[in-house]
Amino acid sequence: MPRFDLLVKNGVLAVPYHGEVRADLAVAGGRIAAIGEDLPAADAGEVVDASGKAVLPGAVDAHFHIGIYRDMALDAYEETRSSLVGGATTVLSYFRTGQHYLDRTGPYKEIFPEVLSAVEGRSFTDYGFHLAPMTVEQIGEIPALVADHGVTSFKYYMFYKGFDLAANSRDARAFTMGDEYDLGHLYLILEQLARTQADHPDLRLSLSLHCEQSELMRIFIDRVRRSGEPQNLRAYSEGRPPLTERLAIAEATTLAGHTGTSVNLLHLSSAEALAEAERARGAHGTDMRFEVTLHHLCLDHDVLDARGGLGGKVNPPIRTSRDNEYLWERVRDGLVSWVASDHACCMEEHKGDDLWPARPGFGGTALLYPVLISEGHHRRGVPLTRIAEVASANPAKAYNLWGRKGSLAVGFDADLTIVDLDREQEVSTGLLLSGQDHCPFDGVKVRGWPVVTVVGGRVAYRDGAVIGEPGGTYLRRS
Amino acid sequence: MPRFDLLVKNGVLAVPYHGEVRADLAVAGGRIAAIGEDLPAADAGEVVDASGKAVLPGAVDAHFHIGIYRDMALDAYEETRSSLVGGATTVLSYFRTGQHYLDRTGPYKEIFPEVLSAVEGRSFTDYGFHLAPMTVEQIGEIPALVADHGVTSFKYYMFYKGFDLAANSRDARAFTMGDEYDLGHLYLILEQLARTQADHPDLRLSLSLHCEQSELMRIFIDRVRRSGEPQNLRAYSEGRPPLTERLAIAEATTLAGHTGTSVNLLHLSSAEALAEAERARGAHGTDMRFEVTLHHLCLDHDVLDARGGLGGKVNPPIRTSRDNEYLWERVRDGLVSWVASDHACCMEEHKGDDLWPARPGFGGTALLYPVLISEGHHRRGVPLTRIAEVASANPAKAYNLWGRKGSLAVGFDADLTIVDLDREQEVSTGLLLSGQDHCPFDGVKVRGWPVVTVVGGRVAYRDGAVIGEPGGTYLRRS
Amino acid sequence: MPRFDLLVKNGVLAVPYHGEVRADLAVAGGRIAAIGEDLPAADAGEVVDASGKAVLPGAVDAHFHIGIYRDMALDAYEETRSSLVGGATTVLSYFRTGQHYLDRTGPYKEIFPEVLSAVEGRSFTDYGFHLAPMTVEQIGEIPALVADHGVTSFKYYMFYKGFDLAANSRDARAFTMGDEYDLGHLYLILEQLARTQADHPDLRLSLSLHCEQSELMRIFIDRVRRSGEPQNLRAYSEGRPPLTERLAIAEATTLAGHTGTSVNLLHLSSAEALAEAERARGAHGTDMRFEVTLHHLCLDHDVLDARGGLGGKVNPPIRTSRDNEYLWERVRDGLVSWVASDHACCMEEHKGDDLWPARPGFGGTALLYPVLISEGHHRRGVPLTRIAEVASANPAKAYNLWGRKGSLAVGFDADLTIVDLDREQEVSTGLLLSGQDHCPFDGVKVRGWPVVTVVGGRVAYRDGAVIGEPGGTYLRRS
Amino acid sequence: MPRFDLLVKNGVLAVPYHGEVRADLAVAGGRIAAIGEDLPAADAGEVVDASGKAVLPGAVDAHFHIGIYRDMALDAYEETRSSLVGGATTVLSYFRTGQHYLDRTGPYKEIFPEVLSAVEGRSFTDYGFHLAPMTVEQIGEIPALVADHGVTSFKYYMFYKGFDLAANSRDARAFTMGDEYDLGHLYLILEQLARTQADHPDLRLSLSLHCEQSELMRIFIDRVRRSGEPQNLRAYSEGRPPLTERLAIAEATTLAGHTGTSVNLLHLSSAEALAEAERARGAHGTDMRFEVTLHHLCLDHDVLDARGGLGGKVNPPIRTSRDNEYLWERVRDGLVSWVASDHACCMEEHKGDDLWPARPGFGGTALLYPVLISEGHHRRGVPLTRIAEVASANPAKAYNLWGRKGSLAVGFDADLTIVDLDREQEVSTGLLLSGQDHCPFDGVKVRGWPVVTVVGGRVAYRDGAVIGEPGGTYLRRS
Repeated sequence: MPRFDLLVKNGVLAVPYHGEVRADLAVAGGRIAAIGEDLPAADAGEVVDASGKAVLPGAVDAHFHIGIYRDMALDAYEETRSSLVGGATTVLSYFRTGQHYLDRTGPYKEIFPEVLSAVEGRSFTDYGFHLAPMTVEQIGEIPALVADHGVTSFKYYMFYKGFDLAANSRDARAFTMGDEYDLGHLYLILEQLARTQADHPDLRLSLSLHCEQSELMRIFIDRVRRSGEPQNLRAYSEGRPPLTERLAIAEATTLAGHTGTSVNLLHLSSAEALAEAERARGAHGTDMRFEVTLHHLCLDHDVLDARGGLGGKVNPPIRTSRDNEYLWERVRDGLVSWVASDHACCMEEHKGDDLWPARPGFGGTALLYPVLISEGHHRRGVPLTRIAEVASANPAKAYNLWGRKGSLAVGFDADLTIVDLDREQEVSTGLLLSGQDHCPFDGVKVRGWPVVTVVGGRVAYRDGAVIGEPGGTYLRRS
Repeated sequence: MPRFDLLVKNGVLAVPYHGEVRADLAVAGGRIAAIGEDLPAADAGEVVDASGKAVLPGAVDAHFHIGIYRDMALDAYEETRSSLVGGATTVLSYFRTGQHYLDRTGPYKEIFPEVLSAVEGRSFTDYGFHLAPMTVEQIGEIPALVADHGVTSFKYYMFYKGFDLAANSRDARAFTMGDEYDLGHLYLILEQLARTQADHPDLRLSLSLHCEQSELMRIFIDRVRRSGEPQNLRAYSEGRPPLTERLAIAEATTLAGHTGTSVNLLHLSSAEALAEAERARGAHGTDMRFEVTLHHLCLDHDVLDARGGLGGKVNPPIRTSRDNEYLWERVRDGLVSWVASDHACCMEEHKGDDLWPARPGFGGTALLYPVLISEGHHRRGVPLTRIAEVASANPAKAYNLWGRKGSLAVGFDADLTIVDLDREQEVSTGLLLSGQDHCPFDGVKVRGWPVVTVVGGRVAYRDGAVIGEPGGTYLRRS
Repeated sequence: MPRFDLLVKNGVLAVPYHGEVRADLAVAGGRIAAIGEDLPAADAGEVVDASGKAVLPGAVDAHFHIGIYRDMALDAYEETRSSLVGGATTVLSYFRTGQHYLDRTGPYKEIFPEVLSAVEGRSFTDYGFHLAPMTVEQIGEIPALVADHGVTSFKYYMFYKGFDLAANSRDARAFTMGDEYDLGHLYLILEQLARTQADHPDLRLSLSLHCEQSELMRIFIDRVRRSGEPQNLRAYSEGRPPLTERLAIAEATTLAGHTGTSVNLLHLSSAEALAEAERARGAHGTDMRFEVTLHHLCLDHDVLDARGGLGGKVNPPIRTSRDNEYLWERVRDGLVSWVASDHACCMEEHKGDDLWPARPGFGGTALLYPVLISEGHHRRGVPLTRIAEVASANPAKAYNLWGRKGSLAVGFDADLTIVDLDREQEVSTGLLLSGQDHCPFDGVKVRGWPVVTVVGGRVAYRDGAVIGEPGGTYLRRS
Repeated sequence: MPRFDLLVKNGVLAVPYHGEVRADLAVAGGRIAAIGEDLPAADAGEVVDASGKAVLPGAVDAHFHIGIYRDMALDAYEETRSSLVGGATTVLSYFRTGQHYLDRTGPYKEIFPEVLSAVEGRSFTDYGFHLAPMTVEQIGEIPALVADHGVTSFKYYMFYKGFDLAANSRDARAFTMGDEYDLGHLYLILEQLARTQADHPDLRLSLSLHCEQSELMRIFIDRVRRSGEPQNLRAYSEGRPPLTERLAIAEATTLAGHTGTSVNLLHLSSAEALAEAERARGAHGTDMRFEVTLHHLCLDHDVLDARGGLGGKVNPPIRTSRDNEYLWERVRDGLVSWVASDHACCMEEHKGDDLWPARPGFGGTALLYPVLISEGHHRRGVPLTRIAEVASANPAKAYNLWGRKGSLAVGFDADLTIVDLDREQEVSTGLLLSGQDHCPFDGVKVRGWPVVTVVGGRVAYRDGAVIGEPGGTYLRRS
């Protein structure tokens, strides 16, 4: 029997926090067993030639929504399949009770096993979950979720205080099916997390925050709806302007600073939001990390509106090219902790042609490395090593996966993707292997695509096609 | 006919921003006509000897509530009478629609004339009003209120989003009788004020803010009510802890910084609140001024609870002696812009012995200079000049009264008080000449009392007794 | 005998920190005895009509050099005469041992009485001295200078470490005739002042600093001298660029912050210097005040070079119009504590036509109020009250003269100037009544000139002419 | 022939920025050829068993003085031999003209080849040089030194302006044998480096600064010498107190911020110095890195004085245990960029028993990892990974050695040390294999010693003994 199951030869490894290394990489038992120059092909059961290509640690797509709008098992299957196209080998999916997802409420001790069961055996990537406590009872379950299920990250949606997901109804309670959902509720979560953290000094327990402030949204949405202007993606951005992000950030960080809870500010969409986040980090003494998404890095509402359609409706809204550039700058200089897709498979029929009832969100996981490399590396000079940090190492560290995920190092899981940096393709829905029937990135020219994606030491994707059955496993993180 | 109506001889004048001046002060036509050494007694119709005494500009009690719990005319009469005892010669009263006050709602163009009419001829001091726009329609009235009525200051109550005044009911809408009352509403006010300000470059249009955050209060009040601990003033403070102030300040200043509107943060009660206010002033680029009250400077909930009773229930709650000392320090170093009484005549029967339904607030205007001098000057070395600044000059400047009120200067209204710095009395309800039948300051030994208070050039108070009829006039401030 | 010696009628008084007051002002016994409306002319021995004019407190020209280049008695006579033209009624002159002035060294207990004696009876204004300890022995004299002579302000020249006054010789020791003169010497002064301050809690003992760093000057002067470019005022500025100020400020404030000594940063000439000073004030916890001069506010080396001549050589050098505007902005917003002339009568023959040996400095005291009013008030909208603060009140407070000097208030010395705000004249040497035979401001159109200057209650200057003999007295400041 | 020359088996690798990895490490051709689990012993010419031991990247001792007091070839031999004991495999030595070292001056194009020639073949470690431009001519040589000799780091000694190395003579010029050596000279260096940097975008050209201010030292040394107190190490610290560091830092960083030159602040010895450095980094916009030494981390002058002797005289002086703790805290939290030995072999006879003429400096390179592990890791919980960063990776990055030095990674030079974390020895001179005949650390109990040190793939040190001849090579860094 050969020493190694798999040998990736002749590639240039992008090793986070270290640099680019020209070396071979050998896999045994699903983990990286050796990195070296000229590892003998004879030692390996299978050899993949990465000559002229870059080898990156499999992306950890830290913001995902399995099953938000569709059957969870189907969604897990089709959407993690799409992840492989983008070089993502781990997804961390948000789940909550209330409308969408399973469309019901109750304690997580009953519901979460159902979620795990629905996804089990259906995911092409490894996967974990962030859970949102929508009721006071669920807040009480946090210690058990950490200890028993290895869930170490939670979520609070700041705009559900006054709106449903689409911002079409203000009956938030019907939507969340939960308890009074406001900053008081947020405070209870933060307090519970701080208490629980004290029992787990080696973990990072954190709360992820969707930062848009609903009371302000009320005013701006009302103004936009009454304005007589076209109800398009620009209108959507004006109805939820950056000020709503800034205010939500100020609120949440004041509370998190008080309790000392670690927080992740999700999908910061605008220059104003990132600047406020930076200011907050200086003012409060707690651990704060900042996420941006592919679409806020690359899409501009005016461009999308010119093309027409509401496929690009998402929360927070798509902003402007000025914001794109600012976000890239902060990816480069290190303020941004990670980049994720916020993938939510949403069919065109649920977008429709009326802005307000249209469902928010869309897929993007298939573009995670391609867009970072094309727009970040080739176009703006972001080094590959930094790209590996924001796509893989940083989220792995933030979410207690470091040691298994996030780097190319002996002992880590053999999750990696081999990228042809020069391969250029125009994005089209078909390429992405998602269940979604449209794509807001359609037509964008992208240079730099994964040609092989390896999950747990097994080649799971090659040259546009998935290989084999779903092999992903659930990631306990405690 | 003598040149001067009144001559104050031999006193030491505390002139704001200048210092103490040993000089006589002469009055003619209700204004200060001369300040000089040895002004001849023969030139004056009436001479008051201030030998060995301090002469201070009449206090501008910038936070007052005429008629909040009683008939407005009666309250105006009895409570401004009480102001004279404390050396206050101007009161600026908050008024709003909704429960209490006139117990109804409607446009200010209808209601405000009624208020003016009720108070006219009934006030011993000059008086003005801050108005709170509780409805969107009232926000629209701001330009007219500025131009037609000389109202240049407005108010927003941050905790009415979720509570009534006593924090006993969460049906805020029944209480405010207004429109949706949240940060969206606040934003509309700030925006309207910024627009209106542009038309009045010589005025300072400002929004005063009661900073307590109702969503957090919900959590802490609930916890306190369920705790089994005594429901006393300590409990009330724990139910509305300083964090609720900090969060409200963070919210309001983020919005005010965005619109560029001048704001006054009212009755900051705790070290945490003042520190947050200071931080906010550094972070946002707009004009912010900070108010503290007599009771937050001097009272401690543990002391009051030891004595028993709920007379000291007030919003924000009475804090601790640690907070007292911090507040005094910031009075001294200039962070605090002014000190006010937040006078609201509230009878003992409306306090009762049940914390939560008890009405908040109480009187204090009669103690404005006495407590500042006794506790500030004698005990903590705050110079008299600084006391005149925080009691008179600073609020006069903030509220567009400078030129008439706030100093001892030729041309200013002859509003002043002559203080016997060494007179010591224990506070008792009877001394204060208020309609209120109890006093949380009862029994406090105070050294330094007005012996004569002059309003508009007329001796209105002398040696514990009011002289003559109410002579105060309404202050248009534009 | 009339009650008042002098009555100034019908003017508008610019009262620092208060505002403009239309009132009469009466003088008795050399001090302001009354301010009032319609003070009776009959009560006064002499009446001056100020109708249509502004009355300002006599300027305190806080940076002056009596006798630096000429006989001290002559200089006192002619140059304080010039002060009256500019509305200055007090001058605070720097004196040191070493070259120029008395051209010798020794203890101040011997030399300072000679200085006082030389000036006595020769000054048209009141006067005081700042003294520079050039030797370790003189540092030891500080407590006695405070206690016995009422000297409360001292000086250190940061560039004498490596240059003489003209920056023509690097033999600084020959120039200072003192001990090793470096940051060690500065430290000894600061330490001595901090110790002495502890014995005088009611005084402000301070060190004034000339902030240019000689080691950097060495490099830049050398570069300029070897450059082949014209050796004009631009060259002089390039030889002592703003970086030399910034470095000197960083050095001095680090030390002053350590010892806790109050400092005055003199004649900050550039935007960079003021910005560094502001930063230093935020970083170190000690009292720092900032001075700018008339010439750094108004002159531009390119304009002067175009006209030719070296009359404008001064330390620090004249900068650019960009710096002018920045300095005015900081006068307006309050960063600048005061404006002074840095008056040093320097004859044209000592300027010559060779830049490096040319003596630095020139007169300006005659333009103190005229330039502030013309360029500050009329052209840039600086209120008259603020001008009275920077020309009079602020330096009076900084140098322990408040109570006597700095305002128009009962009990203060009757030092004032009556300004015709609309009088326009072109500056010419003759107008200024100085001994100096040229003027760098020549030809500048100035609107707003004193028509009467009163010193100690006596009209000392009227309509371009001095009246009577020198009547100024020495100001003990402890 | 085996694939690998050397195989280190079963150790735990401390990989900078990554973490601890249990893996084997194989060497071929002097570089790391593979890292893997269970690399076959049969593949290697030599196997070293690291079971139960830690493997760290060879330390880069970034502050070294080859030949400062002795023959350069001898010193290179004996002192780099000592480095092996401490796990250091690279030394970066400071060299300058003037007294000590070669005791002469002249252009580096003549002198530097002599230095290289003297050291060649005599060093057990790889080595490079930082050079100090003492003359204007040498400043002019910077571009050639970068391009031709691969010297990318330079030095300025801030206290040579006024003192010789021992602070015994103030004839600095005789000592430096250079040009005027002051902040002007420093400015010329910074300017030259900034210009040269522009031609080398991929390098980091930097200036290292010894931060003590000589003018202040003058005052404090004089005071200490005249005090009558024992002239011991405490006296030496009082003669060069932390304020002298703070002032020097303020000066140097103001200039470096202006020119935009990268700087390294060397051997910051006190809490005050590190805090000032941190403040400076926030205020100025340029790249600043901070060094501390072993002795400033671990020694206390009172302890050394109690033991007697002047062996611990060093610049800056040994401080207190309070400073020790502060420095460790900033090592842990990342403010400190690296830890070095500042190794200078200085014989006891040159210390003598008279403080002021005693030569400063002593050896320490043999203790680099031992002290970091014993005092940092075992006693204060600093992770091994962080120790590898401050001892190896960070200085490698700062000095353009990354890619070859600083980590355990495929392709990097096979420089490493195997540490027995539990081995405890008391420090004694003999253990250290240095030429120095005494040691200030004598008697300190240290737990955690290198047992094998590998340089360029060759075992150069094992179990207390050097193996073979010097094999180090000169490191060109451009």
